[in-house]
Amino acid sequence: MSNTPSDDVVLLAHGSGGTLSRDLVSGTVLSHIGNPTLRRLDDSAVVEANGRIAFTTDSYIVDPIFFPGGDIGRLAVCGTVNDLSMVGARPLCISLALIIEEGFPTSHLDRIMESIHAACDESGVEIVTGDTKVVNRGKADKLFINTAGIGAIAQAIDVSGHNACPGDRILLSGTIADHGVAIMGSREGLSFSSEIESDCAPLNGLVSAVLEAGGNAVHAMRDPTRGGLASTLNEIAAQSGVSIRIEEGQIPVAPGVRGACEMLGMDPLYVANEGKLVAIVSPEVAPAVLEAMRGHRYGKSAIDVGEVAQGKPGRVTMRTLMGPTRLVPMLAGELLPRIC
Amino acid sequence: MSNTPSDDVVLLAHGSGGTLSRDLVSGTVLSHIGNPTLRRLDDSAVVEANGRIAFTTDSYIVDPIFFPGGDIGRLAVCGTVNDLSMVGARPLCISLALIIEEGFPTSHLDRIMESIHAACDESGVEIVTGDTKVVNRGKADKLFINTAGIGAIAQAIDVSGHNACPGDRILLSGTIADHGVAIMGSREGLSFSSEIESDCAPLNGLVSAVLEAGGNAVHAMRDPTRGGLASTLNEIAAQSGVSIRIEEGQIPVAPGVRGACEMLGMDPLYVANEGKLVAIVSPEVAPAVLEAMRGHRYGKSAIDVGEVAQGKPGRVTMRTLMGPTRLVPMLAGELLPRIC
Repeated sequence: MSNTPSDDVVLLAHGSGGTLSRDLVSGTVLSHIGNPTLRRLDDSAVVEANGRIAFTTDSYIVDPIFFPGGDIGRLAVCGTVNDLSMVGARPLCISLALIIEEGFPTSHLDRIMESIHAACDESGVEIVTGDTKVVNRGKADKLFINTAGIGAIAQAIDVSGHNACPGDRILLSGTIADHGVAIMGSREGLSFSSEIESDCAPLNGLVSAVLEAGGNAVHAMRDPTRGGLASTLNEIAAQSGVSIRIEEGQIPVAPGVRGACEMLGMDPLYVANEGKLVAIVSPEVAPAVLEAMRGHRYGKSAIDVGEVAQGKPGRVTMRTLMGPTRLVPMLAGELLPRIC
Repeated sequence: MSNTPSDDVVLLAHGSGGTLSRDLVSGTVLSHIGNPTLRRLDDSAVVEANGRIAFTTDSYIVDPIFFPGGDIGRLAVCGTVNDLSMVGARPLCISLALIIEEGFPTSHLDRIMESIHAACDESGVEIVTGDTKVVNRGKADKLFINTAGIGAIAQAIDVSGHNACPGDRILLSGTIADHGVAIMGSREGLSFSSEIESDCAPLNGLVSAVLEAGGNAVHAMRDPTRGGLASTLNEIAAQSGVSIRIEEGQIPVAPGVRGACEMLGMDPLYVANEGKLVAIVSPEVAPAVLEAMRGHRYGKSAIDVGEVAQGKPGRVTMRTLMGPTRLVPMLAGELLPRIC
């Protein structure tokens, strides 16, 4: 009978709003991520904010929920911290909403909550409000997580995908395609010659370094997640009404990741990242921003990969290693479902 | 082949982050709920806030997604508007995150987006940021929605489940159990003698009326959703360290709902509501607050149902129609899974 309480798995009754919901929240959630604001358990958290704030949301449905280099919990915190950071905001607080499949092991929930706690600590944010729902077995796949976040934007900051200007340099914080290949590898049970790990990381520290070095000359930032670097650059080119030109020879791909992509027939330009960013900055600050990025743990391999040009609005082109220039369109169709 | 674009159903590729994602967002989401902030499609929305803000989140997994009196979209907007309102906040903006099962009809998505649009209009909020994910067929149940919300709290307001004081009156805005019975009826295909509709509604207008009439003497508010009125009163009694006494004879239940509860063996005190609130206020303002509630379309049957007392912290009791007083514990186990 699924309504009998158990220490081992999540039951439908854990989503009832009654005593078992309270026990699950107190025992499994608050024990890992509790703080004075969250512990009040009112219908809304109350926080202080003044001026312009950033607000974002993402749901995480990654499969598998544990993968080399991270898990769905770390991904859910980092993804939202990064979305806030990409408009130049300092992340303040995050919400956490769980949709759990009946029968999900509470030991897994504990691991994920601990991972959420660690990612919050690393990025300096707190979970201040949340929600837990449980659906019948077979009506969801183990665990889906939604996080929303609020960040504070300093007065002078105006960073947006709409602000790229002809002449701007395109700076990439490191190797691409690590996350997607790690997920693909663990999902398919592939063994690569080297263990490939997701790059899943909170980028707010790196963004602080970028903004400190580049100030107002930082025009756009984005983390190339679903759809990869190619889709992100297409989005920015379209939003800003500019062309973008990149150099294939400049784009770093780890050798193991490159090999895996070749084996799997995937173009790394379209494979998701979860700990990388693209910063589009005025040419005069590009060297200083690049140096600042390289001084940060998540930007050691930062590199200038191309430029913004007048050209046809929305067009992204790449000068290939072989010499000729080719069009880099947005991802069409689906490469890897449930990558994040 | 599931990757072929189609006008009729949502495909895995609609969650890719590529061109089909863009098409789904532009065609189905923005066409209904677009506004200048949302249309920017940056990683975060940028909004203005000053002072104390309320922040909340809820995921909606209701089954079925269309039910008498509402649908999952209206529920998702109202639920978050209401959670913001219950701490005395004026809702400012909302996020919308969709998890869609592959094969979900786009016509249903259109209906739900239109319903979200109508609920936003009614409550005066905008969707400013969002996310769309698609999971393989059989890995989610049609559609799950998460909304998070931000609200502004006026300087003088301090409304919390922790603030109930002995002597306070307990005001209930109307009949209970309508939502849960409507869901149960439509799920089981039961035909009641009268059509029973969910009470799903945005309560921010009603809350404004309560605060205007009661000011600082409004100590706590909560909308009795999952777990019903009984669980909500237990939560407040525990948080505030007080006892609560209610009168069974005062609690309004529509005749059709009462009949359905008897038929189904459910106690209306534990059945979910989605358009009702409990306001706990100082006795001297209770008549004025009650009058203000009755003047609002969602508070016409508002009534004083009991009082806060010193007694044992966390205890809720009810004087029954038959005379004796009985304990009203928090919901144990599960009454109706996936009610919201």
